[in-house]
Amino acid sequence: MRVHGQAYRTIFVDDDGCTVAVIDQTRLPFAFELTHLQTAEDAAEAIRDMIVRGAPLIGVTAAYGVALGMRADPGDAGLARVVDVLGATRPTAVNLRWALERMRGVLSVEPPSRRVERAYDEAARIADEEVAACAAIGRHGRTLLAAIQERRGGQPVRVLTHCNAGWLACVDWGTALAPVYAAHEAGIAVHVYVDETRPRNQGAALTAFELGAHGIPHTVIADNAGGHLMQRGEVDICIVGSDRATATGDVANKIGTYLKALAAHDNGVPFYAALPSSTIDWTIADGVREVPIEERASREVTHVRGRAEDGRVLDVEVVAPGSAVANPAFDVTPARLLTGIITERGVAAATRAGLLSLYPERAGG
Amino acid sequence: MRVHGQAYRTIFVDDDGCTVAVIDQTRLPFAFELTHLQTAEDAAEAIRDMIVRGAPLIGVTAAYGVALGMRADPGDAGLARVVDVLGATRPTAVNLRWALERMRGVLSVEPPSRRVERAYDEAARIADEEVAACAAIGRHGRTLLAAIQERRGGQPVRVLTHCNAGWLACVDWGTALAPVYAAHEAGIAVHVYVDETRPRNQGAALTAFELGAHGIPHTVIADNAGGHLMQRGEVDICIVGSDRATATGDVANKIGTYLKALAAHDNGVPFYAALPSSTIDWTIADGVREVPIEERASREVTHVRGRAEDGRVLDVEVVAPGSAVANPAFDVTPARLLTGIITERGVAAATRAGLLSLYPERAGG
Repeated sequence: MRVHGQAYRTIFVDDDGCTVAVIDQTRLPFAFELTHLQTAEDAAEAIRDMIVRGAPLIGVTAAYGVALGMRADPGDAGLARVVDVLGATRPTAVNLRWALERMRGVLSVEPPSRRVERAYDEAARIADEEVAACAAIGRHGRTLLAAIQERRGGQPVRVLTHCNAGWLACVDWGTALAPVYAAHEAGIAVHVYVDETRPRNQGAALTAFELGAHGIPHTVIADNAGGHLMQRGEVDICIVGSDRATATGDVANKIGTYLKALAAHDNGVPFYAALPSSTIDWTIADGVREVPIEERASREVTHVRGRAEDGRVLDVEVVAPGSAVANPAFDVTPARLLTGIITERGVAAATRAGLLSLYPERAGG
Repeated sequence: MRVHGQAYRTIFVDDDGCTVAVIDQTRLPFAFELTHLQTAEDAAEAIRDMIVRGAPLIGVTAAYGVALGMRADPGDAGLARVVDVLGATRPTAVNLRWALERMRGVLSVEPPSRRVERAYDEAARIADEEVAACAAIGRHGRTLLAAIQERRGGQPVRVLTHCNAGWLACVDWGTALAPVYAAHEAGIAVHVYVDETRPRNQGAALTAFELGAHGIPHTVIADNAGGHLMQRGEVDICIVGSDRATATGDVANKIGTYLKALAAHDNGVPFYAALPSSTIDWTIADGVREVPIEERASREVTHVRGRAEDGRVLDVEVVAPGSAVANPAFDVTPARLLTGIITERGVAAATRAGLLSLYPERAGG
């Protein structure tokens, strides 16, 4: 998508053909800067420190991380090592493991001498597939927004989203925001309510940045405010992304998603998760019990990063000194609270049958 | 309650017999300082700028504000003016209007020459009544916590609370936290999950401060995390305060309360509002339609106040520049989501019949 008028992907190979460039998302919204990854360790650090984040982008970064690792050691030991290093970065996003398994599968049948080239090719293929999946999600989701616009007599469609599941979380287009961009391109007026998304403020920092840079009207709200807006009839549809969905339609996503799904359910507001099928973990059925939830550093809660009046970006302490902190990064929204799941193949009910109707090849799994 | 080993109320008359001292809550948790109010305008500013906040404390501050106003002009015009000035500070808390009406009623039948003394007396009486009401709420709520502790075989009772409805929101004891302090005094182990409470962080700054200062174990969480904790069975009871309750048991409280009530309901966690009867607006029945919801400055969302590494307390910008912001300060939790309401007279069902069983004198209203 566009930033300062120029089209970007969140990750791409530099002109030297080997260095991997990513947008440094820890610097947004106050600086738009690229970071250059030279090694698998650089890629692992970028994922762990959330220079890149968002389930689809984590997967693609891990794939390129394997390619970078092959440059240092293309042997079997090197391959096993980089898959381990990259796999240990973050526990919740299933795309990470999915991308690493795919890279391992493809590379293990190649001789070491051909692995570097093959790895870059496969990583590029994964990136392109994610872009195509997100674009398709956009088209499918756009029909939902078009129907709401018609019902509202042409008034802007008011979409609430949580965290950042826009193009910054993916390679391009986004998941939850793909329908918004697709609707905008099709001339459907949209207004997005953006949850701030504490503790890391991905909504206020990233979603607001990317919507603003692309010219989409939006309003940032505290995470606490969404229920009130729905109660007052000011939200037409909620769309969120996901870090891992179960085969039964439960959806793990950024902490707080569950609360918004409850409010949507209580007020009859349709609630959708938008996700590429690489986010579906076909091996699990009970999201609340089976999805591992990452507990992140307490400093994310005790401190807030922002820009001071003098222009410096710094962390300020916001919690009473000495108080303990807990920081679960994700929660699970049970399928019963979802109106549906938007994937690259269409919109399905959030049930095993619904997902299998789009992915019949998984019926045996 | 105690700070640095010394007992405080949040508001009291200085040794000079006329200046009113309040704890400056905009300076907490990093500095514990008193602010001294000399005029009704000082009191209005203290309420508007949230140097004092919390429905019961707003009411008492307004009462003392009338007393300060009487010193400048004890005539009928002066009385009408201070009631207007103080009444215009914040729209949601019913205690403000309740305290001002009580002061006007008491003073209007006195000759101007006696109004200053009478005003200080009545304000002190209101303050003492609030303390007594909070202490009684503590005793009634303690029985709920004791029952949970017994059921849990003596394990600490895990209480989730939102915003600050502790002694800092009142004159002493608090509303939602009064049962916690009462249980602690009675030797019942309690662990409090404290919602950060964006945008102004009253949980992280005030509730965490007062619990820490008093030695109550607690954990600060992002507002997004409460649903996840309840889903995992880590919360035994939710207790919140209120800025205005309806005669039917709907409860207006800090924005985000409704989301936690939904999560409690979805997980079978008991959810209580603790409030003195001065918070009940007997004239209204439908909280969602009838309680005016204050829209506060966008800067509360776009900026976060905290302490930098060099010790300075400053505001940092956290929202992408140029993005619009909405900032509703309260939401309404429908009575159907409440397990009960804890008042100074006992615990009632959140229904008209339940509240009238405790306040039969209101049956005619």
